[in-house]
Amino acid sequence: MQYDGTCYAGFQRQKDVVTVQGVLEDALGRLLKHPVTVRAAGRTDSGVHARGQVVAFNTISSIPPGRIPKGLLGLLPDDIIVDWAGEIALDFDPVKDAVSKTYCYRIWRGKRMPVMAHRYVLWYPGGLDYQLMVDEALDFEGTRNFANFRALGSSAKTTVRRVTRARWVQKDVGGQKNVLWEFWVTADGFLYRMIRLMVGTLLDVGRGYLPAGTVRDALKAAESRNGFRVGKCAPGKGLCLEKVCFP
Amino acid sequence: MQYDGTCYAGFQRQKDVVTVQGVLEDALGRLLKHPVTVRAAGRTDSGVHARGQVVAFNTISSIPPGRIPKGLLGLLPDDIIVDWAGEIALDFDPVKDAVSKTYCYRIWRGKRMPVMAHRYVLWYPGGLDYQLMVDEALDFEGTRNFANFRALGSSAKTTVRRVTRARWVQKDVGGQKNVLWEFWVTADGFLYRMIRLMVGTLLDVGRGYLPAGTVRDALKAAESRNGFRVGKCAPGKGLCLEKVCFP
Repeated sequence: MQYDGTCYAGFQRQKDVVTVQGVLEDALGRLLKHPVTVRAAGRTDSGVHARGQVVAFNTISSIPPGRIPKGLLGLLPDDIIVDWAGEIALDFDPVKDAVSKTYCYRIWRGKRMPVMAHRYVLWYPGGLDYQLMVDEALDFEGTRNFANFRALGSSAKTTVRRVTRARWVQKDVGGQKNVLWEFWVTADGFLYRMIRLMVGTLLDVGRGYLPAGTVRDALKAAESRNGFRVGKCAPGKGLCLEKVCFP
Repeated sequence: MQYDGTCYAGFQRQKDVVTVQGVLEDALGRLLKHPVTVRAAGRTDSGVHARGQVVAFNTISSIPPGRIPKGLLGLLPDDIIVDWAGEIALDFDPVKDAVSKTYCYRIWRGKRMPVMAHRYVLWYPGGLDYQLMVDEALDFEGTRNFANFRALGSSAKTTVRRVTRARWVQKDVGGQKNVLWEFWVTADGFLYRMIRLMVGTLLDVGRGYLPAGTVRDALKAAESRNGFRVGKCAPGKGLCLEKVCFP
């Protein structure tokens, strides 16, 4: 499934606020005629988007799974789209069975921001040292302790994650060279706000506010259970869950 | 200036609803420290976007015009961006002085809709005869009477407009061939909901609901002051004011 997370307080159902899970479960409940609880591969945060979210749920409905996406079209708002549905083993768990998740963080570097991208891209026209950010990002790759790249409120048992890719890509848009910068990161899992703290740190290094080597030092400090000052959390709007891989 | 029109009841200031003009004038008033009234080249309708809107206003402020875009950044919401400002002759009128206005209507033809485009593109996966729509659109070109392509509520003195371009363009997106269809239309001016009625008619011809020749017949009927059944008004979200030309 895909969603534009701008208007949602994240994926996970909460009281008194509109969440993707809440809206999706309500629509599924109406379609399948019984209460539905979904489990999602990635619990995206407030304002974060998804192009490749995967959810699972149990149903006793006789509606063929292939009909569910079309059935949901009229029941879901325009900013949530279910692309595909199918039957899977009862013990399938989209969180535990996921081998990797890939997110992308997008930054617009031009002086003129295309307004149609304002919900999906962070506008950052200020000076940034691209090569420094590329080098710094590579230090994230590997099996590392990300304790210094998580926000309070995280309940994860371990803070060790295996990051298999942490790369910047520059793209041309509308004849403008290298105007869109994308940070692609793949890991077996992420801590609370981990990617936004990674991006915030890379931006602070890129603009010269934090020294080169901050990433390496912050990861090293975590190994000896020391805190380390990293960058601040980048806004959620630039982040998108792109893909979840299963065996 | 550019704006995402999704959350606005059109450009023009109205009581009790949020409009682009209202929000812009409030921001300009705060920046320039006196009430401001703007005049816009195109009075876009509810939900319609703009990439190339042009507005004019009078001010007694001593702020250099070149500083206005940056000054407005913090005062305007993210869905309205002023790209440029400069001084112009006191008698400049963005409506009367405009030589032409160009709009684009976008339709997504793929089976899978990219959710990040849901505010800016109409999703229309059904069967459409592209060549028929291309031929039919050409009939709009010329100096014609568009009385049958306007909605009630129009107060225009004349319904004759000179359309210099009414063309479809197919575009590839993300490896998918011809998945985005764009209808580009340029004229010296447009009647109330004229473009959306033009697009609605082309879609109805393309899907076989109205016969080929509907456009030609509807324009001809207007010359003898006869009504003619055209297609229904296409949703505002697919429409964008792209460019206004001045001498």
